[in-house]
This record gives sequence, C-alpha cells and structure tokens, in this order.
Amino acid sequence: MTEREHEGRGPGGPEGTDERPDERVLDPTNLDAARHEVRQRLLSLVEQRDDQGVRDLALSLSPGDLAEVVRPLDVDDTAAVLRNLPPDPLAYVLGEIDNRSLSALFDLLDLDAIADLIEEMPSDEGADLLGELDSRKVQEILAAMDEEERAEVSDLLRYPPESAGGIMDKEFVSCHEDQTCGEAVALLRAKDEDDLETTHFVFVVDDRGRLVGRLPLIHLLLADRDAPLRTVMEVDPLYVEVDLDQEEVAGFFMTHDLISLPVVDHQLRMVGRITADDIMDVLEEEATEDISRLAGVSVAEFGEQSAVRVARTRLPWLLGALLGQFGAVLVMRHFEQSLQTMVTLAFYIPVIMALAGNVGIQTSSVVVRGLATGELALFHVGRHVLREMATSLVIGLAVAVSLVGVSFLVNGNVYLSVVLGVSMLLVVLMASMVGTCTPLLLHRLGADPAVATGPFITTSNDLFGLAIYLGLATLMLSLGHGGAP
Amino acid sequence: MTEREHEGRGPGGPEGTDERPDERVLDPTNLDAARHEVRQRLLSLVEQRDDQGVRDLALSLSPGDLAEVVRPLDVDDTAAVLRNLPPDPLAYVLGEIDNRSLSALFDLLDLDAIADLIEEMPSDEGADLLGELDSRKVQEILAAMDEEERAEVSDLLRYPPESAGGIMDKEFVSCHEDQTCGEAVALLRAKDEDDLETTHFVFVVDDRGRLVGRLPLIHLLLADRDAPLRTVMEVDPLYVEVDLDQEEVAGFFMTHDLISLPVVDHQLRMVGRITADDIMDVLEEEATEDISRLAGVSVAEFGEQSAVRVARTRLPWLLGALLGQFGAVLVMRHFEQSLQTMVTLAFYIPVIMALAGNVGIQTSSVVVRGLATGELALFHVGRHVLREMATSLVIGLAVAVSLVGVSFLVNGNVYLSVVLGVSMLLVVLMASMVGTCTPLLLHRLGADPAVATGPFITTSNDLFGLAIYLGLATLMLSLGHGGAP
Repeated sequence: MTEREHEGRGPGGPEGTDERPDERVLDPTNLDAARHEVRQRLLSLVEQRDDQGVRDLALSLSPGDLAEVVRPLDVDDTAAVLRNLPPDPLAYVLGEIDNRSLSALFDLLDLDAIADLIEEMPSDEGADLLGELDSRKVQEILAAMDEEERAEVSDLLRYPPESAGGIMDKEFVSCHEDQTCGEAVALLRAKDEDDLETTHFVFVVDDRGRLVGRLPLIHLLLADRDAPLRTVMEVDPLYVEVDLDQEEVAGFFMTHDLISLPVVDHQLRMVGRITADDIMDVLEEEATEDISRLAGVSVAEFGEQSAVRVARTRLPWLLGALLGQFGAVLVMRHFEQSLQTMVTLAFYIPVIMALAGNVGIQTSSVVVRGLATGELALFHVGRHVLREMATSLVIGLAVAVSLVGVSFLVNGNVYLSVVLGVSMLLVVLMASMVGTCTPLLLHRLGADPAVATGPFITTSNDLFGLAIYLGLATLMLSLGHGGAP
Repeated sequence: MTEREHEGRGPGGPEGTDERPDERVLDPTNLDAARHEVRQRLLSLVEQRDDQGVRDLALSLSPGDLAEVVRPLDVDDTAAVLRNLPPDPLAYVLGEIDNRSLSALFDLLDLDAIADLIEEMPSDEGADLLGELDSRKVQEILAAMDEEERAEVSDLLRYPPESAGGIMDKEFVSCHEDQTCGEAVALLRAKDEDDLETTHFVFVVDDRGRLVGRLPLIHLLLADRDAPLRTVMEVDPLYVEVDLDQEEVAGFFMTHDLISLPVVDHQLRMVGRITADDIMDVLEEEATEDISRLAGVSVAEFGEQSAVRVARTRLPWLLGALLGQFGAVLVMRHFEQSLQTMVTLAFYIPVIMALAGNVGIQTSSVVVRGLATGELALFHVGRHVLREMATSLVIGLAVAVSLVGVSFLVNGNVYLSVVLGVSMLLVVLMASMVGTCTPLLLHRLGADPAVATGPFITTSNDLFGLAIYLGLATLMLSLGHGGAP
C-alpha cells in the first residue's frame, strides 16, 4: 500500500492533514460530462465559501483530473479553489493549468508557501512557472527555496523556453561508468520517491561528467550486481544539445521512438533530461501554433479572457487584410468603365475570389503541415511543386468547365462564360502556385512557413484573381462582345 | 557491448550477414540537410544498381533516420532500397513509412519473407501494415507466421484502427498478484530482448486475468525479491477500455502524464498496452486532421503522389464553394439595379467578403483547436461565446472606423462610407457568431467540429455579408443619397 490509499483522514481545517484520501479517476469514456459535473459542484461550494467542502472534493480527484476540472475556471474561482489545497496536488495542478491565474493565487500566499510549492514541482514546471513572474518576485522566491532545488530551478531559468534547455528537467539519475550495478541500485534507493516515479534509465557519465552511456532499468534489474556499469550500459546513447529548438527535439524524439532523452551542454556534459510528456506538450503547442498562424490568430489568445486583449491580437491581421483589399478597390476602379458597361461582370467577383481563396488555403496548409511533420522534406520540394502544378491543372479545368456551364445557364452570354472559364483556370493555377511557393520560400529563408501565410496568400490571390478576370473581361468588351450572343 | 556495436561485417551479398555495422545517428541540429545528403547518395546508388552499396549505406544509419531518409522517395525507389535490407531495420522502417509503398515492395518478396518481417515488427505496427493489404493476402501471410505472433497480430486486427485496441500492442509483461518479485524478474529474464526494450512496468492481474495493479521497474528493482507482487504493486492502476476513441485515449494519457497505459476488455481483463510513441503518432495525426479539415483538404493526400487522386479529394470542397457562390450571384442579381445606379458599390465587395472570411476563419479555428486540446470544455462554452461577442464588437468597431475613414478619402462619398462602416460592423458580428457557433453545434451533435467548418463558414459568411452590404446600400440609394454629398 502506498500512502495515497489511506482511507482515514483527520477532520481538521485546510491545514493540518497531509494524508490523501482515496482518489477517484474520472471515467475516460465520458470525460467532458464527468468533469463538468464535478466543476459545477466545485463552483457551488466556492460560492457557499465552504472551504472544507472544496478541499474534500478537490482531493477526491486524481491530480490530472483536478487540473482539467479547474482549467476553464476564471482567475478568481481558480484562486478560490487552489488556496484550499495542500502542496502535493497543488504543485501538480499549477504545472498543468494556464499560468494566467498565478498572480491572483500568489497574492493569497506568502513567500515561504510559494517556495514550498515550487520545490514540490518537477524542476522544469517550477522554472516555467517562475518564468511567468516578474524578476524581483522570482529573486524573492528563489531566496526562500532550499539550496538544491534553487540551484536546479535557477539553472533551468537560463535557457530560452522553446529550446531543449527550456523543456528539460533536472530529475535524472546519473552514475559514473566505473560504478557497479549494485552501487547504482543503492543510489536509486537513496533518492526521493517523487523523483523515482519518472525514472526509467540510469545515465552513465565519465570522469569529466560527459555522457557515455545509458542503462534501461530492465537491464539494471537483470544484470549482475557486481558488474561495472561500463560493461552493461548501452554505449553512444542518443542525446540533444541544450540549445536545440524544441520542434527539432520533438522530431528527433519521435524519429527514434524515445521515452527519455538526455540533454548535454557543448562539452557533452549531461545537464538535463527530456521526457515523453514534455514532447507531447510540444507537439500540442506546435500544432496549435500552426493552426493559429494559418488562421491569423495568436497563440496567446487561448485561455485569454479579456475581449479587448483578444481583439488586440487579432486586429493587426484584419487591418492588414483591409489594407490589402484597398488594392482590390484600386483594381476595380481601374476597370470601372467595363463594370459600368456590363454590371453582370460584378456578379462573378465573389466566385473568382472564393475559389482563389480556397485553393490558396488548401495548397498552403498542405505545405505548412507537410513541413511540420517532416512528410515534406525541404530538399525534396521539387516533386511536390510539380505535383501541385499537375493537381491545379486538373482542378482548374474541372472548376472552369463547371463554371462555364452554370454561368451560361444563368446569364446566357457565351462570351462572358468563356471569359469566366479561362479566368477561373488561370486563377486556380496562380493561387495554387502562390499557396505552395510562399510557405516554401519563407521556410527556406528561415522564417516560420505558417507566419502570415493565411491572410497574405488570401489577399494576394484576391488581387491577382480580380486583375486576371477583369482584364480578360475588358478585352472581351473591347472586341465588341458585351451583349447577348 | 550489445550486438549493434560489432565493427566487422562479412563482405557477402544481400543475404548471409546478419550483423549490424556501427550506426551513425544524423546530426539533429541540421537534420533536413543531413538527410537530404544521404538521400541523394542513396538514390545515385539505386540508379547504378549497386545493391551492396545501397545496403551498406542504409545499414550505416539508425533505423529511425533511415525511415526518414526513405520516406519522401517514390514507390519504385523505396522498393529498390528496401529489398536490399535484412529484416531487422526493414521491419522498423516499414512501421514508420507510408504504407503506400508496401504493395510494390511486397510484390518483390515471397510469403515467408513477408511473414518473417511482420514477426519482427512490434505487434501493433505489424497489424497496421496488414490492415493495408487485401484480406486474401492477409490470410496467406498470417498462415505463414509463427503461431504466437499470428495470434497476437490477428487479435489486434479485430479492432478499429482509431480505437484503443487499434493502437495498442501485445508486448506487455504481466504477472499474477501472488507471484513474488523474484518470479517476476525470472519471467523478464526469459523474455525476448526486443520486447524488453519497451518494458517499463510489470502489470499485475488476478486469477481471472483482471488488471489489479502495476509495478514500475524501479519498484521491482528496489523491492525484496521474496515479496509477493500484491504487496509492492501500485493498486487501482489507470487503464482504458479497448473501444475508446484514440483521441480520448491521447487526452487521458496526457492528463495523467503516462508513458505506458494498459488496455482492458469489458471484463477488465488486460488485452494490450499503449505506449508514449503511439500517443505521439495520434497527436500528430489528429492535428493534421484538424488542419486538413479547416483547409478543406483530405488527410489522404499527404504523401500521395498522383495529381489526379489529390485533385479528386480536393474538388468536392471547391465545387461546393463554387455552388455556394452562385448564391452570391443570385444575391447580386437581386441588387442589380443598385449596382447599375452606382457601380462604385461593387468596388467594396472584396473588402466586405475578405473581412467576413478572415473573421470566420479566426473564430472557427479558435473553437476547433480549443475543443481538440480541451482548453475549451464543451460544458463551459457559454463564457467563450460571450467573450467572442465582446471581442467581435471591439474588432467590428475598429475595422468599421478604419473603413469609413479610408473609403471617405478614396471616394469622398460620406453616405457610402457610412453604409460601408455599418455593414462592416454587422458583417464582423455575424461572421464571428457563425464562426464560433457552427463548430460548437457540430461538436454538440457528435460530429467532428472541423468537418466542413472552413468552406461552409466562408461561403455562408460571404452570402450574408453581401446581403447586408447591398441591402443597406440599396436603402441609402432609395433615400436619394447616391451621388456625392
């Protein structure tokens, strides 16, 4: 029996009891509903200011479920729940939920309580949390922490958040290559229970602290206790350097199907460890980033509750699109005479624009996602561009033929229908090339291919599309084919 | 030293040598370039029909890198490389790369060779691979396999690919709760080395095979060898049932920061295990699916090389958009008189459409991604809808004011500018509500919120937007404000 299964628990107030009651894991088959139900009960307890009730209900959940229950609450409700929790689940929940609720919560706690909390958290999550606070507050909290934990967390604070150093933790176990398996087991036995929970390898270093091997626990378990680690370890273990970008770390991790990856400094000395849960967070984050950039929204808006702040992050994209569309106004003014002569021309502007926009989004999304998953290797793009040209030819012909047919049925003007068909073919070809090549070019230039791809491509496709269509229509009119056939 | 570090290797032909030479892991800091370089060398060796050269180069890579190098090659080149490989890296590579190259490769191999290959693969990847073949071929291959591996793989074939059963494997280790730690260690010692590589827990079952506990290897390592497992195991382990959807499995896995998750049938008997690498694949797959659906492309097109097949998957979306835009033609015909009277009205149609489109994409992407990551809990959407209403009011006012200013500068007509401003405000409010509520409604109805969201929302926003703008403009004209002020 581990400590968590003790049934009895003192009746005392928010402080005093450290035992955890039986935890309930919410049913994974109907998780949204189960969490909602718990969330409503929690909120009504908060409203009744029933601190003990809040605490009991929160502690009856597994920390993971508790984090998910609390996540969508607003800042005040979150703080009202969290201030009733002991450090054990609280540290876990703080590592999972959005950090925006933090300052509100930390205003309720004294420095020592905060320092205790951070000590309780895995070092990487503690560092992430401190990274959200202002630097004076960080210094005060660090000063109140134990020396060992302080050293770990302040070391991690030095690295950019999106690098290998920014996502690694310090809870790895390393031994010298001359130590025996028995000595490694003794070292493990002396470690803190919490740190061992995520230990699946012993990393092996040489005299100068350089990583030379790794030993999966299964091998340690089966090996002779007297054997030196150097004889049973796996040599040349995979590793990444501390300043590698997190997206590349994730790719490396997935390529090699790892569950734990050592991080080294430029002298190959082991400085940290990245675990599978860190990589899953990176994958979610990067996918959210790609979707956001394609859609012209900011990642910062997820979980943000102020409408003004959200509006401020979205407005630049929209004002940019607005500005770009004044280009469209100018294009149309240029063709004012033709529109004046034949107002029917204007009816098909939405068709041309919508198809140009959709084709641009299709082709650019395929490139952005292909680059992100490695499906489309940068150095193998020639074939993709050729495939897209062939695809857009097929698509352009199909759409053009449909448009010719339907528009002839609707307006009976064969010349206009032919102009529409030819324009549509050209517009699809053009939109697909802009959509394919813009993100590739951005990637080649070292920029994120998803940045500005969406709105930029849509606007430029609109302008080119209008110019092609109205240009051809003007040519048709100048040849005297304005009226019915 | 493990087998993989042997330096020497016989000179023999494609068959005969089973030793692996020193593996080279490609530099993670410049992976695209390194892989490209190797890929080019591999292709030139294939062209020279230098089988031994292909084999040597392929075997000099780690299996993970080899899979990434081969992945973008076309079907024939892939088969030309893979037919030179021994089962060990080949099984791994086949598990990673796209399955489209399979039939071409399998035509080159006899049944026994294919059966050997599948036996070599982890059971879940073997089953995935068989799932791609036609059922007669599958029966033949299964018949040629060892009994144990056949039983595992054919069991896995029974489950839908996107369920817990479809992503789990059979390489888990389970013991009876009455067995001692020493007996568990002896069992592990008797297992195949390959299976142990991914073993980090011993799962504990009762008399009827029901899952009752799990034991991390670290606890097994530190426990007394005479202790029965029931006294040292963690009781009430987390698990999922075999038919849970893979997206929910991934959420559960991430909520609880797992690295390995047991899968049980409806009698709680353990039938499989899901590992972190499976979940990472699910996360990538689901993100690709969301992006694809927002963009109106099919997941099937990634890695597809036939332009016609790609065109066929994209065309339905585009023809749908085309059809929808004939709605726009009808709306404009309805207002033909107004456009005839004041052709300047047409100039601003692209502005209205572009902003409606962009706002629709922004708001719907935020909902789709928020639902996917759990950031936006289904039962807490009321607050999100309110936030979006407030946000779109702020955005609508800002965009409307800018549009009034710029359009007045461009055309000097104060009435037209006011009509544009009011239309823009209404269009932004409408587009943001359609963009927010459509995916929420689809989700509530049990459909995937990303399905059809992109093109559907864009088209309906275009129609409503045009109707609002031209309706207001017609009102203005009927009040006699058509000319300059």
